[in-house]
Amino acid sequence: MNNFVYETPTKVFFGKDEEKKVGKIVSGYHPSKVLIHYGGRSAKESGLLDRVKKSLADEGIPFCELGGVKPNPELALVREGIALCAREGVDFILAVGGGSVLDSSKDIANGAANPDADVWDFSLQKKIPEKTLHKGAVLTLSAAGSEMSNSCVITNAQTKEKRGYNCPCNRMDFAIENPELTYSVSPYQTACGAVDIAMHTIERYFSPGDDTYLTDGIAEAVIRAAMKAGEDCLRDPYDYAARANMMWASSLAHNGLTGCGRNVTMAVHQLEHEVSGLYPSVAHGAGLAALWCSWARYVCDSNIPRWLQYASRVWNLSIDHEHPMETVIKAIKQQEEYYQKIGMPVSLKELEIAEEDLETMAVNCSRNKARVLPGYKELGYEDMLAIYRMAYCAGE
Amino acid sequence: MNNFVYETPTKVFFGKDEEKKVGKIVSGYHPSKVLIHYGGRSAKESGLLDRVKKSLADEGIPFCELGGVKPNPELALVREGIALCAREGVDFILAVGGGSVLDSSKDIANGAANPDADVWDFSLQKKIPEKTLHKGAVLTLSAAGSEMSNSCVITNAQTKEKRGYNCPCNRMDFAIENPELTYSVSPYQTACGAVDIAMHTIERYFSPGDDTYLTDGIAEAVIRAAMKAGEDCLRDPYDYAARANMMWASSLAHNGLTGCGRNVTMAVHQLEHEVSGLYPSVAHGAGLAALWCSWARYVCDSNIPRWLQYASRVWNLSIDHEHPMETVIKAIKQQEEYYQKIGMPVSLKELEIAEEDLETMAVNCSRNKARVLPGYKELGYEDMLAIYRMAYCAGE
Repeated sequence: MNNFVYETPTKVFFGKDEEKKVGKIVSGYHPSKVLIHYGGRSAKESGLLDRVKKSLADEGIPFCELGGVKPNPELALVREGIALCAREGVDFILAVGGGSVLDSSKDIANGAANPDADVWDFSLQKKIPEKTLHKGAVLTLSAAGSEMSNSCVITNAQTKEKRGYNCPCNRMDFAIENPELTYSVSPYQTACGAVDIAMHTIERYFSPGDDTYLTDGIAEAVIRAAMKAGEDCLRDPYDYAARANMMWASSLAHNGLTGCGRNVTMAVHQLEHEVSGLYPSVAHGAGLAALWCSWARYVCDSNIPRWLQYASRVWNLSIDHEHPMETVIKAIKQQEEYYQKIGMPVSLKELEIAEEDLETMAVNCSRNKARVLPGYKELGYEDMLAIYRMAYCAGE
Repeated sequence: MNNFVYETPTKVFFGKDEEKKVGKIVSGYHPSKVLIHYGGRSAKESGLLDRVKKSLADEGIPFCELGGVKPNPELALVREGIALCAREGVDFILAVGGGSVLDSSKDIANGAANPDADVWDFSLQKKIPEKTLHKGAVLTLSAAGSEMSNSCVITNAQTKEKRGYNCPCNRMDFAIENPELTYSVSPYQTACGAVDIAMHTIERYFSPGDDTYLTDGIAEAVIRAAMKAGEDCLRDPYDYAARANMMWASSLAHNGLTGCGRNVTMAVHQLEHEVSGLYPSVAHGAGLAALWCSWARYVCDSNIPRWLQYASRVWNLSIDHEHPMETVIKAIKQQEEYYQKIGMPVSLKELEIAEEDLETMAVNCSRNKARVLPGYKELGYEDMLAIYRMAYCAGE
């Protein structure tokens, strides 16, 4: 087991009606002015935004607002938010939305607290934010796990780069998680969320490491629960138990817990960022589903015992000890079929990615052939291109 | 799934040599003076205490010290620590030891920060500490989970009362967990630790609640890992993987994770507190082992599906659907045999408890017949007495 630091300071208020406490919770941070940051119409139309504003107003907390966050949140809006914070004297960011809104809020908080830095330098990992503003979230989507993670992923629409960075400043002070707020999430977005949650854990699970049987057992529990919850939510969008297990899985999958003691790499995430970086309309979860099985088939022979453990404990397969690779391939096929069953793509073609862009994506992901992704099997430019090509017409 | 608040602010530094960072970590809290609090000889003789002092001295941090914490830490020493803090201007408590040292440190921090309150009133739950001193731990024993928990259990030797209280002030700011520091823990204390860890999770697992399948899966993983690690540590005290999984299980078992969404009750802990309250030489883990199987047999018919899930997922038993109780009883027997295999008692007689004290313990645990312990089966005075009597000569 590798040494690790475990830090999950985010205080979670989980369950029905918890968002009613938002004013009281925010008042505990004694903000001068709050920026309410959100996405498109749904937060407005559902009445959630009005309820949040009323809760702040009831506590006498001044606020301003900035909407318009899109999936794959953009640097331009982050810059607008930072300017707004400076102009209005904002010292607390309240995110109302899903992972994109939360990531945009984190980046605004980091940019506003470090006015001498260019916020894009954080995403490029040229600089690390040393301080940040207090921030909290009212979560409306179970997917990215941004509510408890130290991650923040921003897209530069001008350069078509999508870049993530991890640091302690990216932790939310609190997250309010009412599963009922996700009842209205569409089947497609629900499925994308199930993929994202499972993948946050699966990527950690297949990161190099030894003797982490406690972490393994927890990771397997999160993967199984996320997949079951995803299916149950699609069957009945108003199934509270399913929405609740999925929401809590979203937070645990990406807060660090499922990788403790392993040397965490997120290869498929890196491969996917180039897809939705180039095609911003691609939902992150869909991109992950379209890539994962090809990645899995490409790398699985580099640690067969690990893949057999996954086959046995996640998919309940009995291991064929004479032909172990057959068991592994069967497990990957089951994962692929699960994705298909919940309406997710298992190839890049289904996402209408142009075949001629595969090389560009490999060049970008390898940072112009200079970066190798670590893992049981290291992935250089040629490997990335091979995986993109496999993924192009997979599942046919 | 019940609403819940999840808050685990303790920053964990896990792995080999991590204790070497203690001076640097403590310096981040800018203390005026640190109280190093510890137990008996082992921290001194192992050289750990000297290394901790050197690390603080290297950072120029002034400190004083107070040793002598016993298993089942006593109120008298807590009061001595509080007086010392006042006299010396201490504003940071550094615990070097196991759960007893950590609990004593928490109580000193709470008492010192609230000089107008009587610290014993916190244990009696007459008052809640509203502030506390910063505090951290260098952990030397995998058992109580105090390093990440919000619990603190103190014994009043005069009145022979052992009382626990939970509150946010009881969270450590940080915990340093180097599994190698537990290599020297005796087989008996190692076994007690394995019981304590498993029991922190099992008690949450059998607390009332519905639809918590993610939490259930995590809890089952922690129970299985703790029991496997316990056995492996006994087989080879220098098995790093075993010591590491056990130490991490200790923290996760009691930080709140394994009970999220359930209405957590800790009936067996309450029953055990009266045993080691009256017999301070009884190790908490041994007391839990001596009581649990009798408690289990007494309450298991109140929620058979839950017990079948435990039988199937923790003990890998196939369920006899025609005679489900037989499967349940078999699972409890397996747990009992596990305790025996690792050298733990499964009866109060083995702990040399006097039979005539059973009534006193039931009177104390029921707070003079006025308290009922909640759970799938509620336990009043008569039930408690029945369980103590069953436990007296269990396993014969």
